[in-house]
Amino acid sequence: MARLLGIDPGLRFTGWGVIDVEGNRLRHVANGVIATNSAESVPERLRALHESLLGLIDRHSPDEAAVEETYVNRNGAATLKLGYARGVALLAPALAGLVVAEYGALAVKKAVVGTGSADKTQVEMMVRRLLPGVEVARADASDALAVAICHAHHRASARHIAAGVRMA
Amino acid sequence: MARLLGIDPGLRFTGWGVIDVEGNRLRHVANGVIATNSAESVPERLRALHESLLGLIDRHSPDEAAVEETYVNRNGAATLKLGYARGVALLAPALAGLVVAEYGALAVKKAVVGTGSADKTQVEMMVRRLLPGVEVARADASDALAVAICHAHHRASARHIAAGVRMA
Repeated sequence: MARLLGIDPGLRFTGWGVIDVEGNRLRHVANGVIATNSAESVPERLRALHESLLGLIDRHSPDEAAVEETYVNRNGAATLKLGYARGVALLAPALAGLVVAEYGALAVKKAVVGTGSADKTQVEMMVRRLLPGVEVARADASDALAVAICHAHHRASARHIAAGVRMA
Repeated sequence: MARLLGIDPGLRFTGWGVIDVEGNRLRHVANGVIATNSAESVPERLRALHESLLGLIDRHSPDEAAVEETYVNRNGAATLKLGYARGVALLAPALAGLVVAEYGALAVKKAVVGTGSADKTQVEMMVRRLLPGVEVARADASDALAVAICHAHHRASARHIAAGVRMA
């Protein structure tokens, strides 16, 4: 059994989700969204995000973490701000001694829905189907659970490959 | 007297410099560069940067911090990576309870050389002139000292304005 933490980072909203994986069985543990106050300074908001992430790692004791590599086509300033949040999201699990995997949006969609062209609604629907009974806090939390599911698939493949078993 | 920490962040090299300011007198305290190992994973490199920053804040006990808002016109991936380093550089002093100021490259050049069109060599020359006897570790450290000097000027102005004194 392994406990996986998925993170979908953003300066305003950072989604997170924790699942347990045993073989190819998945179980939902918890999910939520960390919101920072846009009236505060950026360093203060990063501090709030950092402390919330450390808090939930402490609370849920995940074994591994996976962070979504959100893709941005907006202006440089927006990309830089997303970078702050991602940097802080990569830092917290590293400080806790966890291995941190990164997945692009395409890989996440492929792992969860089976196609990289899936839209947000399809991803959310599949997250609910793969984690029966899950109550999702917000779309960001659903995306974070999707990253965790993606990581569950990839680490299983990696183990199969390591064991010399070819995947179907 | 106030002790100021300047930071010029980057994932590969982060320059830092500490100065003391008393009225309009500046004194060099220390400077250096934090290098991260590009053979390591990004989360590990961010962790190394984070821990080095916390270490030097602990060692030098600055009262305030200033971070250079480096401008990038390169691709989104490079901007995102710079964002990681900046996010971590803004976080460390915030965790230490310091006020963190941010200055663009233009503001730094204006404060140090007197013109926003100054080049790197001119900035480095003025840093040496303003901080007699300084030995600069690398260009990144010189830039970090320049940010600290810029912050020294701006906080002095802010105090004059607050006291109702008009600057010459």
